[in-house]
Amino acid sequence: MARDPKSKNITWSDGDVNHEARVRRNGHRAAILWFTGLSGSGKSTLAQAVEKELFLRRVHTYILDGDNIRFGLNRDLGFSPQDRTENIRRIGEVANLMMDAGTICLTAFISPYRADRQGSREIAPEGSFIEVYTKCSLDECERRDPKGLYKKARAGEIPQFTGISAPYEEPENAEIVVETDNSTIEECVAQVIGYLADHEFLVVDPG
Amino acid sequence: MARDPKSKNITWSDGDVNHEARVRRNGHRAAILWFTGLSGSGKSTLAQAVEKELFLRRVHTYILDGDNIRFGLNRDLGFSPQDRTENIRRIGEVANLMMDAGTICLTAFISPYRADRQGSREIAPEGSFIEVYTKCSLDECERRDPKGLYKKARAGEIPQFTGISAPYEEPENAEIVVETDNSTIEECVAQVIGYLADHEFLVVDPG
Repeated sequence: MARDPKSKNITWSDGDVNHEARVRRNGHRAAILWFTGLSGSGKSTLAQAVEKELFLRRVHTYILDGDNIRFGLNRDLGFSPQDRTENIRRIGEVANLMMDAGTICLTAFISPYRADRQGSREIAPEGSFIEVYTKCSLDECERRDPKGLYKKARAGEIPQFTGISAPYEEPENAEIVVETDNSTIEECVAQVIGYLADHEFLVVDPG
Repeated sequence: MARDPKSKNITWSDGDVNHEARVRRNGHRAAILWFTGLSGSGKSTLAQAVEKELFLRRVHTYILDGDNIRFGLNRDLGFSPQDRTENIRRIGEVANLMMDAGTICLTAFISPYRADRQGSREIAPEGSFIEVYTKCSLDECERRDPKGLYKKARAGEIPQFTGISAPYEEPENAEIVVETDNSTIEECVAQVIGYLADHEFLVVDPG
């Protein structure tokens, strides 16, 4: 796999179909947008809104989330600390494959452990892993409770629920921090798109 | 995920970024080309040659093979029957995600067990899983022995080696059978591309 997707001197001379060839064909660089935050903090909502904006710009995207991972690749895993780590390890590997395939891959998982997120960062080519912290107070997440999970967790019906009975380790150096209890969705989307534009992910220098 | 990628009446009216939207944007349908066959039968060689031909036609592709899976997603798995099954299960899930993302995903693994290949077929939308059997006699595979693995297996240095000390279950209803000991690589590529063209994977009806 390509180890430096941000390289400016991309060439496709030997006819091989590799990461650089796909980047040139797609007209944008690839990346992993790794959304992390409490349940209800807006990870999936924001990822979907960002994807829609990227798609309008003809960027190739894919979202990995609970819907397509927990019932598929990771259906053998539960919510113990060990299984959460393996869950994130596999997601990191798949995100890296999606990135290698030329997409901007968005992942929307709580991913509560710092070490697990760091593991996913380390297997990605340098500069291609972008951590997006959807920062939101526990009070506000619990007030929103879109899936009724906090209510169940408080009632003791869900063990090891992040923020209630299992830890969430806040990012210390996330590339992007969006405060979803203080910003509109449009502002959050603009913040993420702005980062990608500023770091030259959305266009490829024709050389 | 889309359940019928061969549908003729693809529309993208609600602005959602889904499988159909990606197919329309890419200008071709998505699929899984599942190469199966003995070690040395030409799976990877053929997959790469097919990918090159597809890329020239501006088709979005990605190859899953030992290089990017065994050292990444599946580095926790060995070669026991149980681990081989889990190996193929995960590959099938990732191929399905790649397919959902709009690519023609090519997988190049021995995948010796019929039930495992069937499992991967069953999770893919109907018509999108295309089994490609790289048929080649054991004698010829052993004569080629590109990685020196048969020699090691015969010397007892590799346990459970497919064709020698572990079974290979031939496909009974593969969509495509290429006889790599009786055909040139160009002929095999033409056979695969011909299948995709005949089954309307390479163009999208503008409706």
